[in-house]
Amino acid sequence: MKPYAFGVDIGGTTVKIGFFKSDGTFLDSWEIPTRTEEGGRKILPDIARSISKKVKEAGISLDQVEGVGVGVPGPVMSDGIVNKCVNLGWGVVDVKSQLSDLLDNISVEVANDANVAALGEQWRGGGMGFENVLMVTLGTGVGGGVIIGGRILHGANGAGGEIGHMKVRDDETAVCGCGKRGCLEQYASATGIVRISNLALERDPKRETSMRRFDPLTAKDVFDCARQGDAVAGEIMEEFGKALGEAIAHITCVMDPDVVVIGGGVSKAGQMILDVVSKYYKEAAFFPQKNTQFKLAVLGNNAGMYGAVRMIISDK
Amino acid sequence: MKPYAFGVDIGGTTVKIGFFKSDGTFLDSWEIPTRTEEGGRKILPDIARSISKKVKEAGISLDQVEGVGVGVPGPVMSDGIVNKCVNLGWGVVDVKSQLSDLLDNISVEVANDANVAALGEQWRGGGMGFENVLMVTLGTGVGGGVIIGGRILHGANGAGGEIGHMKVRDDETAVCGCGKRGCLEQYASATGIVRISNLALERDPKRETSMRRFDPLTAKDVFDCARQGDAVAGEIMEEFGKALGEAIAHITCVMDPDVVVIGGGVSKAGQMILDVVSKYYKEAAFFPQKNTQFKLAVLGNNAGMYGAVRMIISDK
Repeated sequence: MKPYAFGVDIGGTTVKIGFFKSDGTFLDSWEIPTRTEEGGRKILPDIARSISKKVKEAGISLDQVEGVGVGVPGPVMSDGIVNKCVNLGWGVVDVKSQLSDLLDNISVEVANDANVAALGEQWRGGGMGFENVLMVTLGTGVGGGVIIGGRILHGANGAGGEIGHMKVRDDETAVCGCGKRGCLEQYASATGIVRISNLALERDPKRETSMRRFDPLTAKDVFDCARQGDAVAGEIMEEFGKALGEAIAHITCVMDPDVVVIGGGVSKAGQMILDVVSKYYKEAAFFPQKNTQFKLAVLGNNAGMYGAVRMIISDK
Repeated sequence: MKPYAFGVDIGGTTVKIGFFKSDGTFLDSWEIPTRTEEGGRKILPDIARSISKKVKEAGISLDQVEGVGVGVPGPVMSDGIVNKCVNLGWGVVDVKSQLSDLLDNISVEVANDANVAALGEQWRGGGMGFENVLMVTLGTGVGGGVIIGGRILHGANGAGGEIGHMKVRDDETAVCGCGKRGCLEQYASATGIVRISNLALERDPKRETSMRRFDPLTAKDVFDCARQGDAVAGEIMEEFGKALGEAIAHITCVMDPDVVVIGGGVSKAGQMILDVVSKYYKEAAFFPQKNTQFKLAVLGNNAGMYGAVRMIISDK
C-alpha cells in the first residue's frame, strides 16, 4: 500500500479534508467552503485542488497516495455514482470517476455520509474494537449506518442504514417529512423531541412544567428539564426512549451487531440517553441480543473524515 | 480451486448432503439419518463417513475436494463453533475443527441453517442475480437470513436474520415462545396464522365462515378459504400481510436489499402471499425501497445444501 491517504467529508457548507498515513496515523485536517452554486460543479475541482496543494506542501507526490475516500450527503450507488444530492445542488454525479480524473487517476471510494460516519466511529470511535456496529445519529433528523464485518452496508439503493423512517407507531396522525406517519424521526430527532414536547404542553395547558419557560423550546432544554426532575420532561424522555429503543430492537434482531453507537447533537445529553433507550431496548429485544452494548459516539464532526479515509486503507 | 465440494444441511431428522463441482455444477445429493442420541456425538462422524464413501465411489480423493460447507439448526459463532443446538442434542460443538479433523484437515465452513438457506436462494433460487437479499422463511416459526454483497450476515451472536421475534404489535396479550409479546411469529408463522384464525372464530362465534369446517384448522386451510372468497379468512390474510409487510419494511429501510425472497411451507400459497404482503409493505416502506422486489423461494428443502456448498466455492 502507498504511504498516504485522504478522507473527505462533503457537507452542505464546508468540506472537511483529512490527511493520513496509510497505517491510520492522522497527520492534518482542514476545511474548505462547499461552493454549491452552478449545480455544485466547483465542489470536486475545489477538493482536487486542495488535495494537490497539500501533497505539494508535504513534499510528496500523488504517486505516494493510496487514494481518496469521500462521504457525500446523499444516496450513493455501489459504482460510486451519486444519485441526487439536494444540499450540494447535484443531480447524478459520478464522483468516483470525476475526482479520480482530477487527481491523475488516483483510487477514489465514495459512500453516503451517514454510512461513512458509522465506519469512522467503528474504526476509531464508540465502536472501536468491534466489527459489527449499528450507528444511530440523532440530529435534526435521525440517520444511521450499518457496519458489517468492518465494511459499510451500502444497500441496493444506496440507502442502507436509513433508520429514521422506520415506522414505530400505528396511532400517529401527524405526517412525517417523508410522507408517512409514525416514523422514528417524529419522536427521536431533535425536531421530533420538540414536536412531542409541544404536543404535551398543548394537551394539558394547566400542568406545571419548567419546559414552559423556553421559547422556542429545544431538545436540549427538554433533556435539561428532565435531568432536573421535571415530570413532563421525564415523560417525553420515556416516549423518546420507547420509540428509539424499540426501533433499535427491530434492527438488532436482524443484523445482530456487537454494539450500538449513538451520536448526533441529541446524544450530547450523554448517559441519560443511553439509560432510557437501553431500558426500552431490553424489553423489546430478542434474547440473544438483550445484552448488546450501547455506547456514545466520540468523534463528533470528525467521524466522516475518519470513515472516508478508512474506506481507502482498510483491508476489508 | 480444487475441482469438487460438498454442501451439508443438518436437520433434526435427516442430514442432506450435496456433491458439486467447484464451478457450481450439481452432481448428486442424498440423505442420511441424524443420530441425535448420546448428545448427537455420532452426527459429524456419520457425515464424514458418508462424504468419504462418496469420494471413493466417484473415483477421486479428498485432495481434490475444496471443502465442506455445513448448515446447522442453531446459532453459529464466526469461528465456526455452534453454541447449543437443541434439535441435535448438541451443547457447544466446534463443528469446523471436528469435521475438518475427520476429513484429513479439509476446509470446513459452518453457518446457521436459515442463513445458509438464504445464501442458497440468493445463489440459485428466488434471489438469483442479486447480491443483497432478505430471505424470510414462514414455517412452524418465522426465520430469516440476510445476504449482503453475496455473503451471509452472521451477526455478533450468530443470530443474524432472526426476524421472527421482531416486535410488530403493542397490543398483544398472548406470550410468544420467546417470552415477549407481539412478535412477528405470532401472526406470520403457520402456527401464528392458525392462532389468529382461532381467535377470530372465538371472538365472533356466530359469524359464518367455511374455516369452521376444519378440525384442526391449518394455515393452508385458511389460505384456501381466503382464495375461495371467505370473508373471515380474507381478514386473517390482511392481518398476516400487515404484520409481515410492516416488519419487512422495518428491515429494508436498514439493509436496503435488492429483493425479498419468501419461502417456507406457508409460502406454498404462492402469489396471494406476495400480493398481500407487498401491499402492506408499500404502505410502510421508506420511499427509496418502495419498489423492492418480492419473490417466492424456489429451492425448497434443497436451499440449505446449495447455500452450504456456496460458502466453500464463492469468491466473496
